[in-house]
Amino acid sequence: MSVILYGFWRSIASFRVRVALRLKGLAFDEIPIDILSGEQFKPDYEAVNAERVVPTFVHDGHSFFQSLAIIEYLEDIQPNPRLLPAETEERAYARSLALVTVADAHPLVVPRVRNHLANTFGADIRVIEAWAKHWTTEGLATYERLLARRAPAPFALGAEPGIADICIAGQVISAHFLNLDLSAFPAVARLAERCFAIPAFASSHPFEQPGSKAVSAH
Amino acid sequence: MSVILYGFWRSIASFRVRVALRLKGLAFDEIPIDILSGEQFKPDYEAVNAERVVPTFVHDGHSFFQSLAIIEYLEDIQPNPRLLPAETEERAYARSLALVTVADAHPLVVPRVRNHLANTFGADIRVIEAWAKHWTTEGLATYERLLARRAPAPFALGAEPGIADICIAGQVISAHFLNLDLSAFPAVARLAERCFAIPAFASSHPFEQPGSKAVSAH
Repeated sequence: MSVILYGFWRSIASFRVRVALRLKGLAFDEIPIDILSGEQFKPDYEAVNAERVVPTFVHDGHSFFQSLAIIEYLEDIQPNPRLLPAETEERAYARSLALVTVADAHPLVVPRVRNHLANTFGADIRVIEAWAKHWTTEGLATYERLLARRAPAPFALGAEPGIADICIAGQVISAHFLNLDLSAFPAVARLAERCFAIPAFASSHPFEQPGSKAVSAH
Repeated sequence: MSVILYGFWRSIASFRVRVALRLKGLAFDEIPIDILSGEQFKPDYEAVNAERVVPTFVHDGHSFFQSLAIIEYLEDIQPNPRLLPAETEERAYARSLALVTVADAHPLVVPRVRNHLANTFGADIRVIEAWAKHWTTEGLATYERLLARRAPAPFALGAEPGIADICIAGQVISAHFLNLDLSAFPAVARLAERCFAIPAFASSHPFEQPGSKAVSAH
């Protein structure tokens, strides 16, 4: 099976898909699209992804985008290990958790939003960071309240990591990018620690990607 | 089966769930949560939904949130009529389309973001509307490019309306709220017209909800 992932080292959505691929043991080649320099807006990439975002996932000629849609597809083609619970109510709860960051917290801090804040309000880096910290903290606080209601055991929905854990781990990466203190979110911090002890998570972390190392080397 | 939807007349996410319930012929009672006056932050509602957003869906004691998670749950418990295609690749594409608005365009224009723009940048109503128009137009343009690549037949993925159409129709409601001209997005406009000719869509429109009529009556 031929799998290509168009991604970017710093992209949290790319991180989510990398983790899912590795948890399922699926090999893939990643093609970097530098979303900080605007490579996603070039015609070549628009032909790959009409939304002009990363990640894009290409499997045997079929192309999909949006991290959750890709992870659900992986679940369909390679059901083991499961990333979504078998039981209907649990599956719905896992998706609810995933969407807290995918549909609410994370969309507010991506590069195109930061750029638009700078262009519209003349926001400088300090103001943009404050904006990103506000929304990232909101996401962490929501996860902390949710995990407090149902203690992780040891992952969000049970014994094995799944789609909710992948999304919560991504939210914690956003927090690290912003040097946010996680001490107010102990359940989230512990969950992320458990995740990053797993090779599929650790090796998918932005700072472990070749693009990150190229930046540090400059 | 007892179904309760905590929603709000103007909420696009509530609209999506209402349409899905009605397409599947599931009866429900809607409890209004006024997100413009901040009712979602009251302790009573936080007990219902730790994220403090609408909609929340309660079915036989199980509670879920996030419109896509709710719609996927409805698909699981009541598979007919299908809102997601049976074929794996088509299902992934339907979810990709749905997430364009759910994960990218819509999260940027919700009340809490508008309020934060006002509080952080002193943005007045004119500036906030311009912000909302920018991101809503981005979503419309993405959908137009996607529909241009694969002509609707007559709905986004085939003969019957599904999750992608529900999400595109919601994006068009956002556009109407902002008085955006749809003439640059003819495929999107035609798709929405087809959707709103269906009673499940028409009766779920924000302006058809009791809360909307109460506002107009003032």
